[in-house]
Amino acid sequence: MKKTLYLIGIGPGGPEYLTMQAIEALRTIDCFFMLEKDGRGKDELIAARQAILARYLPDANPRVATRASPPRRMDADGYREGVQQWHARKRELIAEMIEQELAAGERGAFLIWGDPSLYDQTVSLVNELVAASPQRLELVVIPGITAVQALTAAHRIPVNRIGESITITTGRAIAQQDPAAIHNSVVMLDNNAEFQHFTGQDLDLYWGAYLGCDDQALAAGPIGAVCDELLERRARLREEHGWIMDTYLLRRRR
Amino acid sequence: MKKTLYLIGIGPGGPEYLTMQAIEALRTIDCFFMLEKDGRGKDELIAARQAILARYLPDANPRVATRASPPRRMDADGYREGVQQWHARKRELIAEMIEQELAAGERGAFLIWGDPSLYDQTVSLVNELVAASPQRLELVVIPGITAVQALTAAHRIPVNRIGESITITTGRAIAQQDPAAIHNSVVMLDNNAEFQHFTGQDLDLYWGAYLGCDDQALAAGPIGAVCDELLERRARLREEHGWIMDTYLLRRRR
Repeated sequence: MKKTLYLIGIGPGGPEYLTMQAIEALRTIDCFFMLEKDGRGKDELIAARQAILARYLPDANPRVATRASPPRRMDADGYREGVQQWHARKRELIAEMIEQELAAGERGAFLIWGDPSLYDQTVSLVNELVAASPQRLELVVIPGITAVQALTAAHRIPVNRIGESITITTGRAIAQQDPAAIHNSVVMLDNNAEFQHFTGQDLDLYWGAYLGCDDQALAAGPIGAVCDELLERRARLREEHGWIMDTYLLRRRR
Repeated sequence: MKKTLYLIGIGPGGPEYLTMQAIEALRTIDCFFMLEKDGRGKDELIAARQAILARYLPDANPRVATRASPPRRMDADGYREGVQQWHARKRELIAEMIEQELAAGERGAFLIWGDPSLYDQTVSLVNELVAASPQRLELVVIPGITAVQALTAAHRIPVNRIGESITITTGRAIAQQDPAAIHNSVVMLDNNAEFQHFTGQDLDLYWGAYLGCDDQALAAGPIGAVCDELLERRARLREEHGWIMDTYLLRRRR
């Protein structure tokens, strides 16, 4: 009797972004696993998860197991090593939760913002646990709507023009790129508004924060024309909310 | 009283991929627009749309307006020009449907495979119609799960490794790329199995066809090891179904 761990994508914001596949999966779960971490709107994250369970499991009373997410230390040797150490601690914690919280044959689940496959490494961590004991653990991944899709839907634009390729990248990576080589790039995980370094380029910016949430914020226009005002607005929003999570598309004008 | 056109992403296959947002939008639609085209499993497309309406609007009897999709002619001057002419005919047809099928204040909708933002230019065509008469027409885009997300969920892999960028591209574009420059690329719209030209590279292939459907087919492994068998299998599947639509990730081994 294997244990099964579900990674269920919940989309970018409100419970309306869940797919029917995700909702049907929710209804089979014995125990929901939650890792609480500081920053990035901790309270909003908890509230969103509770709203999902209240809406889709109104009569059920599933078990919920909560742990503090391991802090990500910044003192490690380099970015990748720091992330790897953080992931190792997270993997141990997930293994412990599966061991302690699930009986044989039961199903646990993490609700994952957006899609479990995009810039979330829980899939890889659980795969390592499955590889270590394939007779005892199984993984199921349920896709969810990403912030990228919420961004393009809100702006009513395609993510690509005819025949065009799309790059999805991070603030860290775009900061190191030759600005002249940017054609059609979606940037995620950018704490530092790296777009401000591309104002000399012939690029249009399509920007969104708190995508899919009630307080979604949008801006669009030629990067040189909108950058200054957006930087001010972004700082103001971060102050108001205590955090900001934004995603944007940089598209070279033709 | 504006008319509103909804582009509703229905995901890659079965009705379980619709989000609650999409389902709630369906229930407000006065008339569903359908463009029927030959190839790519015409019968399957119609059946999938009917299954969605039957499942989520069992008691409603919405109007359905059907037109033959304009054929894409291959005799134009070059790829982009051919696509542009095809799009112009499609835009005229959509304008005609909005004019003929919707009364003032009513809502029409196209159900779009996957996400309306990814490799589907209906968003752009309707934007041009909105720009031409912003007082009379409005556009709403509802995101859907893409084949890319169905692919990575089925393989239980992340679409990126730590800090890594992602390229989403077409068969046509990857065929023209320097193979040594491929690191982490998702390929869509590839009729010619272009991956067969990369067998000399140190790449892993994660492949899927009919993603999200009952007859989903998957394959994975080092490109050199799996290519020949996959080409045979792909030809067999295309013969059985009369069409094939596949998506794959090429990932350089570290």
